[in-house]
Amino acid sequence: MIIGGDAAGMSAASQARRLKGPDELEIVAFERGNFTSYSACGIPYWVGGDVDGPDRLIARTPREHRERGVDLRLRTEVTGLDVDRGRVRVRDLESGAGSWEGYDRLVIATGARPVRPPLPGVDAAGVHGVQTLDDGQALLDTLTGLNGTPGRRAVVVGAGYIGVEMAEALLARGYEVTVLHRGEQPMSTLDPDMGRLVREAMDGLGITTVGGAEVTKFLTGDDGRVRAVATEDAEYPADVVVLGMGVAPETTLAREAGLPLGSYGGLLTDLSMRVRGRDEIWAGGDCVEVLDLVSGRERHIPLGTHANKHGQVIGSNVAGGYGTFPGVVGTAVSKVCSLEIARTGLREKDAQAVGLRFVTVTVESTSRAGYYPGAAPMTVKMLAERRTGRLLGCQIVGREGAAKRVDIAAVALTAGMTVEQITALDLGYAPPFSPVWDPVQVAARKAVAAVRKAGA
Amino acid sequence: MIIGGDAAGMSAASQARRLKGPDELEIVAFERGNFTSYSACGIPYWVGGDVDGPDRLIARTPREHRERGVDLRLRTEVTGLDVDRGRVRVRDLESGAGSWEGYDRLVIATGARPVRPPLPGVDAAGVHGVQTLDDGQALLDTLTGLNGTPGRRAVVVGAGYIGVEMAEALLARGYEVTVLHRGEQPMSTLDPDMGRLVREAMDGLGITTVGGAEVTKFLTGDDGRVRAVATEDAEYPADVVVLGMGVAPETTLAREAGLPLGSYGGLLTDLSMRVRGRDEIWAGGDCVEVLDLVSGRERHIPLGTHANKHGQVIGSNVAGGYGTFPGVVGTAVSKVCSLEIARTGLREKDAQAVGLRFVTVTVESTSRAGYYPGAAPMTVKMLAERRTGRLLGCQIVGREGAAKRVDIAAVALTAGMTVEQITALDLGYAPPFSPVWDPVQVAARKAVAAVRKAGA
Repeated sequence: MIIGGDAAGMSAASQARRLKGPDELEIVAFERGNFTSYSACGIPYWVGGDVDGPDRLIARTPREHRERGVDLRLRTEVTGLDVDRGRVRVRDLESGAGSWEGYDRLVIATGARPVRPPLPGVDAAGVHGVQTLDDGQALLDTLTGLNGTPGRRAVVVGAGYIGVEMAEALLARGYEVTVLHRGEQPMSTLDPDMGRLVREAMDGLGITTVGGAEVTKFLTGDDGRVRAVATEDAEYPADVVVLGMGVAPETTLAREAGLPLGSYGGLLTDLSMRVRGRDEIWAGGDCVEVLDLVSGRERHIPLGTHANKHGQVIGSNVAGGYGTFPGVVGTAVSKVCSLEIARTGLREKDAQAVGLRFVTVTVESTSRAGYYPGAAPMTVKMLAERRTGRLLGCQIVGREGAAKRVDIAAVALTAGMTVEQITALDLGYAPPFSPVWDPVQVAARKAVAAVRKAGA
Repeated sequence: MIIGGDAAGMSAASQARRLKGPDELEIVAFERGNFTSYSACGIPYWVGGDVDGPDRLIARTPREHRERGVDLRLRTEVTGLDVDRGRVRVRDLESGAGSWEGYDRLVIATGARPVRPPLPGVDAAGVHGVQTLDDGQALLDTLTGLNGTPGRRAVVVGAGYIGVEMAEALLARGYEVTVLHRGEQPMSTLDPDMGRLVREAMDGLGITTVGGAEVTKFLTGDDGRVRAVATEDAEYPADVVVLGMGVAPETTLAREAGLPLGSYGGLLTDLSMRVRGRDEIWAGGDCVEVLDLVSGRERHIPLGTHANKHGQVIGSNVAGGYGTFPGVVGTAVSKVCSLEIARTGLREKDAQAVGLRFVTVTVESTSRAGYYPGAAPMTVKMLAERRTGRLLGCQIVGREGAAKRVDIAAVALTAGMTVEQITALDLGYAPPFSPVWDPVQVAARKAVAAVRKAGA
């Protein structure tokens, strides 16, 4: 039995079905909404008009799942979990009818819910989250309704991945865009010195960013629609507001059932994605916490790629096979217009928080050989442990070819490599693709020197 | 004392000078030609008109090296090496004067020479190699001389990196291009099934490729200029011919001095790039063989990125510091028009040659999320060892975003990862940059299944 029909849940279903036929394993999946296996990460591009939606964002439809022998029940909400008796309480959202359904093995894939601050006006018309395809459609309906409005203004609250992507989408729709965020710089998943590069690029695109902004309320007009966002310091007029304040694990059921949760409110699992202390329950996707292999701590990292991997592992294990998810190193990539943003491993404050001593270096390099047409500047920051020289983190801001370079550092982090080992890596070199020293290696060389200079 | 003023030699000079000032370490470098520290890899792009040359291809000029305290002697050839007495015989190519010069520590960075088959007509006007900047200029002079010729035809002999890059360059110059190569498919650094994709793409660009072609002579006209290339089977009319038949280590001096050479004719060094058995001689760049970390064998891999790394290591060691070059995994990337080609690790025949048993898988994926604009197809082939599942090699052919993805596999190979470990890697994911499973991981998943199926 699977609770949740998106990436983790339905990947688990598919993988289990690959290993065991319908006569060996019955699979039932409950999904509250109308869609399955969709790419929430694609919503900003749909809203921005780069991608037709919502159909194109659906990797596998309910019908396809059913054809593969999954008893999928849409518009069916699980409202209770009784782990002692191995059953869940479900409610048909159409008819309102409720019932108990028993399971032998349970997969919790309830995902995450967007953070919606309990502020006045947050539920006003024109204030949108962008977590589900329905959210995306509702936002697009609002934008369509505003089509005749002159000088349309949008305010995005939050400057994480979803915030900057939505800012770009709204800019593409012709809006004057203001991004309000709490931190000193946008993209607080980067160190502030790298976040500054993102802010400068956003400035250059004509997106207004306001740091240190604490939203206090959403002001509405006589028609009940949002008309401005107020912070402690100012008011920002808005015809539409997008909330990009992050998401929290959706673990209400799990909490009520007494399952173990971590400090971010996500379910805690073992390496096989089994919920700790429970032999018959697995969990994956945005509702779990994952082990950060660099810091040794659990973190909440809601990302479709992890959810798919979790599902794959869970599906194998549920069906009597074997798989593990060893953990993450915190890799994330994003873009805002032509700017590419990437990070992996620890930021300075993460490293400090777990007692690591480290050096940091930042270098400027280029995406291609300097003489090759289209060579674009790239800034690479690297953190390395003092004494050992072990790589701790890498952040990259640049243009074309910047983002996926972080994979070099992600694999090196996973392997526990030192920055000196990184300087010797045999990376792909040809003038259209890289300078003779890859930018990541330019940073590693400087980090080697910094480690040496820092001494013991 | 350094023999050779290109990447390895001058990187060694620069690094040594960083560690030791002119009062501590005298550095003299002999270079036969007029240029230093130039990018031979950039020549095809210069010839194709994408890059202005030759100045832009020079990373550091002779004057810059001299300003950093390197006694650089251009147009000075080293004609003899007397390791017993620690001296070299040099000849000033301008005056013809010869002399002996003593050294305390010697760096051999004599590079490689293009393979020129000893065939009739190979020295005819219009038959060009493309190893040095002078070669590039000579070819461009020929092309300029042919500007008025209608229906200009070029024949490229060899379909390795330089061959396909030159084919593209000549196509860009408006030539009808035929590539003659010995193997079944072009790019014999790939397995033939992947090379076929390159051939198909070249066909699509209008480049004629002829496999299994053994060149027997270069036919010349009454003016002494090349007019056709003859193989065992046919004649191919040619206004200009480019030889891209690979290069061999330039180790004549070293051989005459009795220094240890490997089976490819390259100098053999230890991990500090010191010539085996000699305390006072280092060697690096295209004149050495390098350890292939996957096969455990020495190979000759002439690549600017290795030469720079060797130079860095040698410069540190010569100046009393410490550095090592642990070896390579055989990574190479290339492009022909919009086609990107990458490989790392072992081909099937390489793995067979060293006694490895393996499985191979090939998958089709895309460069971005399938729904994201610009998502381009990508074919990834992977070799994994039977039983252990250790990654042995990876080859990628695709469009934008294909080539540098091979770095994921290159780092994983270096770390000795299994394909199962690769499936769990935390790689950068966002719709503009990758499907939810990176193509390399799609291949790794299939490889995991293949390893399992192959059993013991």
